[in-house]
Amino acid sequence: MATILVIFLRYRERLEKLGVCCTLQDLGKHIVDGKELPLPPVLFGQLGDDKSKKTVLVYGHVDVQPAAKSDGWNTDPFTLTEKNEKLYGRGSSDDKGPVLCWLHAVEMLQKQKINIPVNIKFCFEAMEESGSIGLAELLERNKNDFLAGVDFVCISDSYWLGTTKPCLTHGLRGICSFQLEVTGIQQDLHSGVYGGVVHEPLQDLVWMMSQLTSVENRILIPGIYDDVAPMSKEEHELYDSIDFCVKEFRESVGAKKLPTEDKKTLLIRRWREPCLSLHGIEGAFSGAGEKTVIPSKVIGKFSIRIVPNMKPEKVNKLVVDFLNDLWRKRGSPNTFNPRLGHDALPWVADTNDANFKAVHGVDPDYIREGCSIPITLTFQELTGKSVLLLPLGAADDMAHSQNEKMNKINYIQGVKTLLAYLLELGKV
Amino acid sequence: MATILVIFLRYRERLEKLGVCCTLQDLGKHIVDGKELPLPPVLFGQLGDDKSKKTVLVYGHVDVQPAAKSDGWNTDPFTLTEKNEKLYGRGSSDDKGPVLCWLHAVEMLQKQKINIPVNIKFCFEAMEESGSIGLAELLERNKNDFLAGVDFVCISDSYWLGTTKPCLTHGLRGICSFQLEVTGIQQDLHSGVYGGVVHEPLQDLVWMMSQLTSVENRILIPGIYDDVAPMSKEEHELYDSIDFCVKEFRESVGAKKLPTEDKKTLLIRRWREPCLSLHGIEGAFSGAGEKTVIPSKVIGKFSIRIVPNMKPEKVNKLVVDFLNDLWRKRGSPNTFNPRLGHDALPWVADTNDANFKAVHGVDPDYIREGCSIPITLTFQELTGKSVLLLPLGAADDMAHSQNEKMNKINYIQGVKTLLAYLLELGKV
Repeated sequence: MATILVIFLRYRERLEKLGVCCTLQDLGKHIVDGKELPLPPVLFGQLGDDKSKKTVLVYGHVDVQPAAKSDGWNTDPFTLTEKNEKLYGRGSSDDKGPVLCWLHAVEMLQKQKINIPVNIKFCFEAMEESGSIGLAELLERNKNDFLAGVDFVCISDSYWLGTTKPCLTHGLRGICSFQLEVTGIQQDLHSGVYGGVVHEPLQDLVWMMSQLTSVENRILIPGIYDDVAPMSKEEHELYDSIDFCVKEFRESVGAKKLPTEDKKTLLIRRWREPCLSLHGIEGAFSGAGEKTVIPSKVIGKFSIRIVPNMKPEKVNKLVVDFLNDLWRKRGSPNTFNPRLGHDALPWVADTNDANFKAVHGVDPDYIREGCSIPITLTFQELTGKSVLLLPLGAADDMAHSQNEKMNKINYIQGVKTLLAYLLELGKV
Repeated sequence: MATILVIFLRYRERLEKLGVCCTLQDLGKHIVDGKELPLPPVLFGQLGDDKSKKTVLVYGHVDVQPAAKSDGWNTDPFTLTEKNEKLYGRGSSDDKGPVLCWLHAVEMLQKQKINIPVNIKFCFEAMEESGSIGLAELLERNKNDFLAGVDFVCISDSYWLGTTKPCLTHGLRGICSFQLEVTGIQQDLHSGVYGGVVHEPLQDLVWMMSQLTSVENRILIPGIYDDVAPMSKEEHELYDSIDFCVKEFRESVGAKKLPTEDKKTLLIRRWREPCLSLHGIEGAFSGAGEKTVIPSKVIGKFSIRIVPNMKPEKVNKLVVDFLNDLWRKRGSPNTFNPRLGHDALPWVADTNDANFKAVHGVDPDYIREGCSIPITLTFQELTGKSVLLLPLGAADDMAHSQNEKMNKINYIQGVKTLLAYLLELGKV
């Protein structure tokens, strides 16, 4: 919390040097397991208040996914390191790099004494990787205040489909997260002394987790695919024309084989079908080497990406009902407790809006994304205006993974793209 | 390595104050994943060299299982903390506490100017929790040197069956450890961007791990129970007479129900039947909270406790063959690599030996143990003499777990027991 405040103060200082009027908005507290946790603030900024100009709201986030050198990073994840024209570091691409691109774009226009033809509002948060807790409510409270008069929203927090051709993102998957807790013994036990005469919570948990997906990574929860929006003929055709090489994709992830190697089916599965990923287990031995322990309380983590027209409430119910059925089937005397984590709605935009048309440069591919940016839909609903997802990073930036990077060329061209977008918006 | 050297130098200093002649024995190096790791030394000590006296060899270990306050300890695991007549700290019971009891016993006899009627040799190591790597070979090399003339071996590295009645341990299970590595993508991936279009290694691994045991914690690997020694009528009767309360045991582990609640079946499963425990997964997300990642390389850890007449080579082959069959059945394009960890043979002693008869105090229960002390069998084979397992700690000491402790009363009575044992040995 102290760290994130320091980070926000640095961003505020840089914004204020550009003449941006900034305030830190208190998000209050969040209750986890009965404990109150203070939430980091949100930074609101405003540059220009010319009634004759349109206003664009720029969103970004300065929080990042966890990272440690020992996860397999080649460099310290929290020291930006340049190597082979790439900028390595946690957040370089998701999403501190793109946030900085916005600051550079404004700075460059001011240095060149070019009139910025739009008013700019900034909304930078630090809870995006945790489902943007509290932000929707804060924005709701500011609907007639900070959000009033916003004509366009722009978010740079997604990725190109490949590594060379710029893209515009017009769809995002949502997410429902889950935690499966299994307990049954009061503390970790010596497996030599107690092995064979207790029901091991971890044996129950891996069995539960193994029942969620098929070997081809399709979800085994009944009804989960029922609400997926049917595809129109036009959408089918859009997929046919997208520039995407399955072989290059397969090689970039380093897989021998993919669950599907058909371009269209693969893109459909990534963008407009739900999927289930297992993330890990808390409470079991996770170090290197051996530890002959029977863990007493283990928590399996997984999430389901959801698409239109799936609703988190319905997905949560389907999943929890399925888990409870599974647990009955398992017949273990241990205690099972399924918990809901954060969720976010999917989002799809109208690509014919002026906001989309204002993007300068090569004709982009209109793509969707498999991931979630929880606040996209909130901005669209509260402003009633179009939200543009303008990705600056390349497909191989490895957000959330080891050795996250942003290419120097994407960073520099990204600044130019944002700058051109601002100038184009002035012509709308 | 530096830490363990410092610990050994402290023990050497204390032993030398008692007149024990000490040397540190180099164990050389151990190769793990192609890398050479230096092994910690072994401490050999000798007190007395009177040819007219018998010689007892005392074994202990000063290494411990991993521990961190964040695992759920109420106190710093590496600061011995007294609370409610209990001494809390990692190693308090397994096995630094018992090692110190030996030092106190000798010190007390010397202070009281009581002649110690036996020569004592000490063998303290620091690799017990990792399968005593290198120790068997070191002892083999010292068969006609340090081990020559040893008449009795005594090890205090096990536990009473309950919390009130002292026990003598005359059997130990062995162990075979395994690691299941599944890889398939070159690094961790963002589950939003890649979810649904890769075969997730963690999905494969939890499925593999879920196929090893039944819900009642019986091993599903064909042939694994085939070599378990049949029980004689006498052994059946021995189990009938043992003082053991299933209800108290169940409550001490905090379980609602056990896989068996029949006293005899439960003890048989703990002491003379194999069992399989899952310990955890390396490489997946193991922290608190959420991380929407697809882990790229995950390693499942499990071990099987083995009993007479099972042989590690045969168990290893049964398990690896089973795992390879399972993997074929899974049909995943990912890469699976089963690896063998440390193993140790089971051990059973003849309780009619003078070494067992020399134990003073209340008539003890003759028990076996579910856990392994790898070096027990080596001592028996190399000296050709009886090995006494003289447990000092209580059943609820929670070795390998959070909040490991030794009761102050066990610590004090333990010193007296060892002291009486030394005096009794002089009468043999």
